[in-house]
Amino acid sequence: MTTLAIDCMGGDHGLRVTLPACRRFLDAHPDASLLLVGAGEALSGFQHPRATVVHAAEVVAMDDAVEVALRKKKNSSMRVAIQQVKEGKAQAAVSAGNTGALMALARYLLKTVDGIDRPAIAYPLPNAKGGATTVLDLGANVDCNEQHLLQFAVMGSALVSALNGKEQPTVGLLNIGEEIIKGNEVIKRAGELLRSAAAAGDLNFHGNVEGNDIFKGTTDIVVCDGFVGNVALKTSEGLASMIGGFLREEFSRNIFTKVAALAVYPVLAAFKNRVDYRRYNGAALLGLRGLVFKSHGSADDFAFGQALVRAYDAARNNLLDRVQARIAHAKPLLVGPSPDAQPLEAIASE
Amino acid sequence: MTTLAIDCMGGDHGLRVTLPACRRFLDAHPDASLLLVGAGEALSGFQHPRATVVHAAEVVAMDDAVEVALRKKKNSSMRVAIQQVKEGKAQAAVSAGNTGALMALARYLLKTVDGIDRPAIAYPLPNAKGGATTVLDLGANVDCNEQHLLQFAVMGSALVSALNGKEQPTVGLLNIGEEIIKGNEVIKRAGELLRSAAAAGDLNFHGNVEGNDIFKGTTDIVVCDGFVGNVALKTSEGLASMIGGFLREEFSRNIFTKVAALAVYPVLAAFKNRVDYRRYNGAALLGLRGLVFKSHGSADDFAFGQALVRAYDAARNNLLDRVQARIAHAKPLLVGPSPDAQPLEAIASE
Repeated sequence: MTTLAIDCMGGDHGLRVTLPACRRFLDAHPDASLLLVGAGEALSGFQHPRATVVHAAEVVAMDDAVEVALRKKKNSSMRVAIQQVKEGKAQAAVSAGNTGALMALARYLLKTVDGIDRPAIAYPLPNAKGGATTVLDLGANVDCNEQHLLQFAVMGSALVSALNGKEQPTVGLLNIGEEIIKGNEVIKRAGELLRSAAAAGDLNFHGNVEGNDIFKGTTDIVVCDGFVGNVALKTSEGLASMIGGFLREEFSRNIFTKVAALAVYPVLAAFKNRVDYRRYNGAALLGLRGLVFKSHGSADDFAFGQALVRAYDAARNNLLDRVQARIAHAKPLLVGPSPDAQPLEAIASE
Repeated sequence: MTTLAIDCMGGDHGLRVTLPACRRFLDAHPDASLLLVGAGEALSGFQHPRATVVHAAEVVAMDDAVEVALRKKKNSSMRVAIQQVKEGKAQAAVSAGNTGALMALARYLLKTVDGIDRPAIAYPLPNAKGGATTVLDLGANVDCNEQHLLQFAVMGSALVSALNGKEQPTVGLLNIGEEIIKGNEVIKRAGELLRSAAAAGDLNFHGNVEGNDIFKGTTDIVVCDGFVGNVALKTSEGLASMIGGFLREEFSRNIFTKVAALAVYPVLAAFKNRVDYRRYNGAALLGLRGLVFKSHGSADDFAFGQALVRAYDAARNNLLDRVQARIAHAKPLLVGPSPDAQPLEAIASE
């Protein structure tokens, strides 16, 4: 039996989205059980033999500062969900709440794995090959050094091997050119370190990749500084939204284009399905002594359900052990200067 | 009379693209003349009262190293075109050749303006408002400090005021959140510097922006480190290409979808026109003592023509004087530590 702890109150839509997703997930996964964390009175109506309500009186708001989540709301659904993982009552926690608060609470309660300075957030982005490219860090680890980038590469490899069953996923280092001499000093040193790690059998390093390789699907994993990753992700969201808006506008320009849209509806629906990021919802917080998955805040019940499935697969396939084993194996390369852990205030809120 | 020097041999397609664009440009701009730089025998067939052939025996290849362009090919069409600007025979040079070589030759021949450490490349990207957002740096100024980011902001403002007639264009600082406390140390210091510059009347600073603001069109100008800018640009190209590919595939799946594509052809054509980056072709190399514009290497004759128009507008609207005047005005803020000029080897090739 695999048990997940669900922050039922988080995200833009809260219960309206989380509960239908939980029910569908339970029906589809007979060997899974859920701990539904949130306001007891609101959750009491949810009856299922494999669901247990865990009461939590408070909710971390999408715009709450990290300090509020950490110091004030000690009985929030987000915190109590992570607490279930810490206490061994659940194998993974899932929340659609505020990213900064989730990362801070997860670090505070679960602590990092030996050899990891900074937890990372790994997002799957759809690629032209029909699969997903896992990009990390998309948290907010700004000013990373080469050691951090190696840690991200090792953890990302563990994630993809656990979720996609690919034991030696390829890793690309995000750079401004494919040549070894390209990039800033951190990137050049990271390239050397990743080549050493590949030589030691710690990972399958492809080499430098460029921004367009993320959506081409050149490698399974793309590793970058959290600042660069955040810009790449947000820029992509902006472009996708602009393109989608233009397409909608052109098809709703007048009665003729509206009829045309109806005529090609199956084609547009198939297209929409292929660019549907909801299928890949569920980012992993990696490097902690427990599994936490982050759903997009605006997820609908289908998307939130995908995050549940990813958390479930990660738990069943021992992602935690995989991360620890891979980090332990790469340890000889991870003995660089140990930088201060990032102050919690620096963690980005969503 | 405004005179442009055109590297007719550069780009993926060379003469096949540059010559038709030059002819159309001349026909549309009766007060412009062109210096057509390239192989004399190939250009001699181009007859126009306002076109003069300037012979250059060599061509910088798209994959030539910067050193080859600088030291070996001393009679390349790219170099000779820039030389025309240096000698005052042309007000601007345009090339679709290798970016790294173009930047290196332009720096070497023209030198930078007082107060500028590193020239920048400013790209216009289409935005949801139907205009373009000018992003810089998209050259390869990696490891920028706050002084460089201020220089980019001042130069970008001069460019947009010259090309779009907007005297006080808005500037956004690319970051991972809108709040002042977000970002790495360089970004935070750059934010302070940009606020001081705004207070001194040097520019119209909007504040921090995120990746999605580029395509939203939140500000006229977005300023960032060349590494981050390159990743954002390439990631966007990758996503646009993936989305375009999916749309094409869905419409060519079978005979029914192909007929459907014909039925909605006007709508798809209108959509394609709106996302057509060719309309915005022509990146400015800023901070040099002469105007140089870079066309995309794969530009067709329409796109190359747009780059000619941008160079012509910049020359007519005294972009060079505007940059120098704005930099001189911002001088009190530009007295930070003067870092070493970037070594030419570090400049990215396209």
